[in-house]
Amino acid sequence: MERRKFLTGAAIGTAASALAAPAVAQGNITWRMVTTWPKNFPGLGVGAQRLADRITAATDGQLTVQVFAAGEMVPALQALDAVIDGSAEMSHGAAYYWQNKSVGLSFFTGVPFGMTAREMTAWIRYMGGQEIWDEIYDQFGLKGFLSGNTGTQAGGWFKNELTGLQDIQGLRFRTPGLGGQVWAKIGASVTNLAAGEVYQALQNNTLDAAEFVGPYNDLALGFYQVCNHYYTSSFVEPGLATELVVDKAKYEELPANIQTIIRDVCQAEYDQVASDMYANDPRALATLINEHGVTVHSAFPDEILEAAANASVELLTEIREGGDELTKKTVENYVEALNILRSRTEGTDAGFVEARRKYFSFT
Amino acid sequence: MERRKFLTGAAIGTAASALAAPAVAQGNITWRMVTTWPKNFPGLGVGAQRLADRITAATDGQLTVQVFAAGEMVPALQALDAVIDGSAEMSHGAAYYWQNKSVGLSFFTGVPFGMTAREMTAWIRYMGGQEIWDEIYDQFGLKGFLSGNTGTQAGGWFKNELTGLQDIQGLRFRTPGLGGQVWAKIGASVTNLAAGEVYQALQNNTLDAAEFVGPYNDLALGFYQVCNHYYTSSFVEPGLATELVVDKAKYEELPANIQTIIRDVCQAEYDQVASDMYANDPRALATLINEHGVTVHSAFPDEILEAAANASVELLTEIREGGDELTKKTVENYVEALNILRSRTEGTDAGFVEARRKYFSFT
Repeated sequence: MERRKFLTGAAIGTAASALAAPAVAQGNITWRMVTTWPKNFPGLGVGAQRLADRITAATDGQLTVQVFAAGEMVPALQALDAVIDGSAEMSHGAAYYWQNKSVGLSFFTGVPFGMTAREMTAWIRYMGGQEIWDEIYDQFGLKGFLSGNTGTQAGGWFKNELTGLQDIQGLRFRTPGLGGQVWAKIGASVTNLAAGEVYQALQNNTLDAAEFVGPYNDLALGFYQVCNHYYTSSFVEPGLATELVVDKAKYEELPANIQTIIRDVCQAEYDQVASDMYANDPRALATLINEHGVTVHSAFPDEILEAAANASVELLTEIREGGDELTKKTVENYVEALNILRSRTEGTDAGFVEARRKYFSFT
Repeated sequence: MERRKFLTGAAIGTAASALAAPAVAQGNITWRMVTTWPKNFPGLGVGAQRLADRITAATDGQLTVQVFAAGEMVPALQALDAVIDGSAEMSHGAAYYWQNKSVGLSFFTGVPFGMTAREMTAWIRYMGGQEIWDEIYDQFGLKGFLSGNTGTQAGGWFKNELTGLQDIQGLRFRTPGLGGQVWAKIGASVTNLAAGEVYQALQNNTLDAAEFVGPYNDLALGFYQVCNHYYTSSFVEPGLATELVVDKAKYEELPANIQTIIRDVCQAEYDQVASDMYANDPRALATLINEHGVTVHSAFPDEILEAAANASVELLTEIREGGDELTKKTVENYVEALNILRSRTEGTDAGFVEARRKYFSFT
């Protein structure tokens, strides 16, 4: 059935330019959205399907979006190439998967000690982020939109409590991306197993620790059965943003109102996915604590935080200095925006949250 | 000209049901959006206009939205009545302005020591908030959508620094709504002047203090010329949400895809308005400090925070016990959701923000 859907999609996907007529299009077209998420993956995979359905609904089917989970048309990490080569018109994933195309793309997903979900969208929409992102993707004939955010992720699952830096020397830790590079810099032995292999590696004692997303996703994967210590505040993924990437030329051939619908629905989903995570993470965390006896630590020991922050500065500096001009520009713009935005988050916002935590109790 | 626009709007606004035909509508209709904001009011008024423009663009003009600033068709505080009596099809404002219709409406804007912007939308979309809101507005033939959020507002402008509770006894303070009631409970002499009168009252020494929105709006009003002490973290407005309210019957007569466009664009704007505020508040705050020599305090003294938190519990309890069944249900649902959501904000999120504040410095 997937093959048939694929062929159907291919047959009509190329009719996009028919819609470019100035009047309302005569017929409907179908676009194929490949994703990097397993089918029905909570939060993110569900969000990709919901985004597709919203576009279909808002255009009254003029643009019908058909979703392919990871592996249905192409493997997760070939989603972007599928859009580039024309097998699909859209991909839903995270920009940092495409670091091999441009290192700067990591900054549009999130970096260690970087922007929160709230800060990220302010940067993209008001502080030059979208323009630089457009410049990067333009090289590949693509355009990206923010399409979701997990909020601050969990720090990870550990078999033993961490008391300081000595406990992570040689620790076999599954943690991908730039975050993994930071953990490696401070002494961990970092591996990047696929999600489906992590549980068994922990069980077999070939891994000592792993981080994935947050309580909502982690509960479903059963890590609590093999690790007792859960650190809830990640410093490497303070707000992972997802993206919708479209074939830029085909997008620009769409009628203007359908272009705005895609843009606006992505922005609505940026709020929706985060809302899903915020509503469901704490409920899952309560289950982990109350039903599965997990020991929760809200922060890593100060010694680890301090070393990791220094390692992050080192890593971000290496990226800024070691890449091309566009990467340098990305890092500089990101850091300038971050330093402005964090003054509000760490001032006004943190001031309120701390006051509420200390003094307000109401049931 | 405004009168002509008004008449044009009235003439075609009633044609809404023509769009209900199952096929794509033949002609365009115009809806009138009355707002509670001054024309071009930064953040919120600009957001109302942008939301209107987005609906017009996404529907390719099938639903064209015409915006009336406060006073152009009706005064700010008659915006909701204009929708109820059919003079307009939509209003853009804040639900707490309509407390006289139902006390529970305050909870859909924000309450003292209540939800942040992030928590509010999780409650509305995943924890029963929208359903209760619908139940309240249904009594008036209306339906509400979140359409923006200021984020945590500033605590206010004070002529003198506050060292403790004794400094606010009898303090003549302009602060409206439930927040004003909390300040009154802990000793302030609260007044609610219109925005345009506040500056002069401070200058004439008939006021000692005032709070408005945050740096982005406050800078424009020039309060720094008459007050030197600025407290940046409000405890009474931790995340003020705006609303778009529509005439429910007319909304339900729209084609299904236009209904989803209105809903989705409102959600996009929830992110957009907050992004605007987050990008521009810290830049305005820097101007206040560096160019106008304002003394900034990120939090009120602990003694004030503690007394205000207790006063807020007292006030929220009075509302819960003193109103009708629907108000009781609103407060109970809100508090249950808040207690779940705050565990993530004050745990995972605050843990990251604090770690970044303490250890991460990169320029």
